[in-house]
Amino acid sequence: MDNLLYILTYIAVTASAISGALEARKYNMDIVGATTTAFVTAFGGGTVRDLLLGRTPVFWLTSPWLVVIVFIVGAISFYRIDTISNNLLAIADAIGLGLFSILGATYALQLDLSPVVAVLMGVVTGIFGGVLRDLFCNRIPSVFRQNTELYATCSFIGTWVFIFLHWLNIDSFISAAIAATIIFILRIAAVRFKMTLPAPKIGKGV
Amino acid sequence: MDNLLYILTYIAVTASAISGALEARKYNMDIVGATTTAFVTAFGGGTVRDLLLGRTPVFWLTSPWLVVIVFIVGAISFYRIDTISNNLLAIADAIGLGLFSILGATYALQLDLSPVVAVLMGVVTGIFGGVLRDLFCNRIPSVFRQNTELYATCSFIGTWVFIFLHWLNIDSFISAAIAATIIFILRIAAVRFKMTLPAPKIGKGV
Amino acid sequence: MDNLLYILTYIAVTASAISGALEARKYNMDIVGATTTAFVTAFGGGTVRDLLLGRTPVFWLTSPWLVVIVFIVGAISFYRIDTISNNLLAIADAIGLGLFSILGATYALQLDLSPVVAVLMGVVTGIFGGVLRDLFCNRIPSVFRQNTELYATCSFIGTWVFIFLHWLNIDSFISAAIAATIIFILRIAAVRFKMTLPAPKIGKGV
Repeated sequence: MDNLLYILTYIAVTASAISGALEARKYNMDIVGATTTAFVTAFGGGTVRDLLLGRTPVFWLTSPWLVVIVFIVGAISFYRIDTISNNLLAIADAIGLGLFSILGATYALQLDLSPVVAVLMGVVTGIFGGVLRDLFCNRIPSVFRQNTELYATCSFIGTWVFIFLHWLNIDSFISAAIAATIIFILRIAAVRFKMTLPAPKIGKGV
Repeated sequence: MDNLLYILTYIAVTASAISGALEARKYNMDIVGATTTAFVTAFGGGTVRDLLLGRTPVFWLTSPWLVVIVFIVGAISFYRIDTISNNLLAIADAIGLGLFSILGATYALQLDLSPVVAVLMGVVTGIFGGVLRDLFCNRIPSVFRQNTELYATCSFIGTWVFIFLHWLNIDSFISAAIAATIIFILRIAAVRFKMTLPAPKIGKGV
Repeated sequence: MDNLLYILTYIAVTASAISGALEARKYNMDIVGATTTAFVTAFGGGTVRDLLLGRTPVFWLTSPWLVVIVFIVGAISFYRIDTISNNLLAIADAIGLGLFSILGATYALQLDLSPVVAVLMGVVTGIFGGVLRDLFCNRIPSVFRQNTELYATCSFIGTWVFIFLHWLNIDSFISAAIAATIIFILRIAAVRFKMTLPAPKIGKGV
C-alpha cells in the first residue's frame, strides 16, 4: 500500500513539475524560472500547509529525492517537451489534487484542529501550488477565474466526505482512498463537461 | 471589555471580507477566488505576523468560527451585495487597522523584541491583508501607491504612541485603547481630507 | 574577521535597499511602498529561508539596527538619489549574493539536511529578495527571465563548491570565503560579458 502511495505521489509531483515548467516557457522565462516554477507548482501547496501548521523544516527539505526529481522533470520539460497530451496532464494533476487534499486534512486532524480548518488545509494543500505558479507568472490565479472548471470545489467536497467518514470512525486508509477517488472523479468530470461555478448576476461596480 | 474586543474584531473582519470579495468580483473571479480573497484580506496580516514570529499553528486555525464568518460574508458579498457605502466600509476598515496594529505590536513585545520591530509587526499586521489581496488581484498593492491616502502611516504613528505609553508603564488596556483610537481617527481624517505622502521631486529614471 | 563579515553584510543590505527603493519609484509607489520594497529586497531571501527551516522569530526581528538602516537607506534613496552607478550597485549586490548564499547553505547543514537542499537554501537565500521585490512591483521576477545575466546560477555553482569543500573537511571559514568569492566573480563576469542561459529551441505553445 505504501508503494502505491509512493507511485501516486511521484505521478502527481511529476505532473505539477511539467505543468509549471511549460507555463514558465510561455512567459519567456529561462531555465531558472522554469525549474523554480516547476518546484513551486509541485511543492507550493504542501509548503503553505506546513508553514501555517508550524510543521518545519517543511516536508521537501527532508525529501531530497523528490526535490531532484522535480528539477530534472522541470528542466527536461522546459528544453525537450514540445507538445504534451492535455488529457494525460489533467489526469495526473487530478491524482495529485485528490492525494494532497486528503493529506492536508489529515495533518490538520493530527493537530486536533476543527473539521472546518481541516477542510481548509486540505483545499490549500490541493490548490496553492497552482496559485503560486500563477503569481510567479504574474497573472490572476486560474483556479480563481470564472471560466475555470471546478477545481477547489472538488477538493472541498471530497475533503468534507473524508472528515465525515473519519467522524464515523471508518478506517483512515479506506476513508482516504474513497475521498481521494471522489475528488479525482469530480475533477475529471468537471474538465470533461466544462463545469464551472455560477457567476454573480449583479454588476461589477461597487 | 472582552465583549467589546470581540465585537470590534468581528466588525473589522467582516469589513475586510466584504472588501476582498467585492475586489475579486471586479477582476472576474469566481466564488472560489472571492472567498479566498476575502479570507486573505481578513487574515493575511495576522498570518504573516504569526509566521514571522513563529506563532504556529497560525491564529485562525484555532478560530473556526472566524473562518466560517469570513467565508459566509465573502460569499454573500460576492453574489448579493450590489452597492455598499464606501464610508461605512472605510469606518469598519479603520477599526480593524487600529485593532490589529496594536495586537501585532503586543505580540512582538510579549517576545521581548525591540520597539522598532514591535512597531513593524504592528504595521505588518495592519496592512498585509490588503497587500496580499492586491497581489492576488495582480496589481501593485494600493497601500504602496502615491495617490493612496495615509494608511500604513496611521498604523505607524499610533503604534509608536502605544510603545511610548507602554514604556511609561501605563496600563496596557488603556494604552491600547488610546493608540487604536488615534490610528482610527488618523485614518478617517486621511480619507476625509485626502491626505497623501509627499512624492519625490526627482525623476523616475535611475 | 567578524568585523569584515559585519561590513560586508551592511554593504550588501544597503545595496539591496537602494535597488528596492529605486525600483519602487519607477512604479509610482510612495514612501511606504519604497521602504517596504527596500525591506523585502534586503531581507526577503533570508526570511523565506528562516520560515522554511523553522528558524523563528526570523533573523531581522532580533536585529533592530539592520531594520533601521534599511528604512533610512530606502527613504533616502527614494527622495534623494537621482542617479546611481549601476556598476557600483552590481558589485555591492554581488557581494550580498555570495555572502547570503553561503549563509543559507550553512544554516541548512546545521540542521543536518542533505547537500541538495542545502544548495537550494543557499540559492533561495541569495535570490528571493529580488523575486519578492518584483512580485510587489507586479512583474515576472527578473531573475527568471531569458535575457537576464546569470544570477541564481552563480549562487548554485558557488554553493556546490562550498558543500564540496565542507565534505572535504576544509575549515568552514576558508570554505565559505572561497565559495562566496567564486559566486562574486561569476556574477561580475556574467554582468560584464552578458552571459545568459540557453533558451529552449522549441516553440512556446503546449
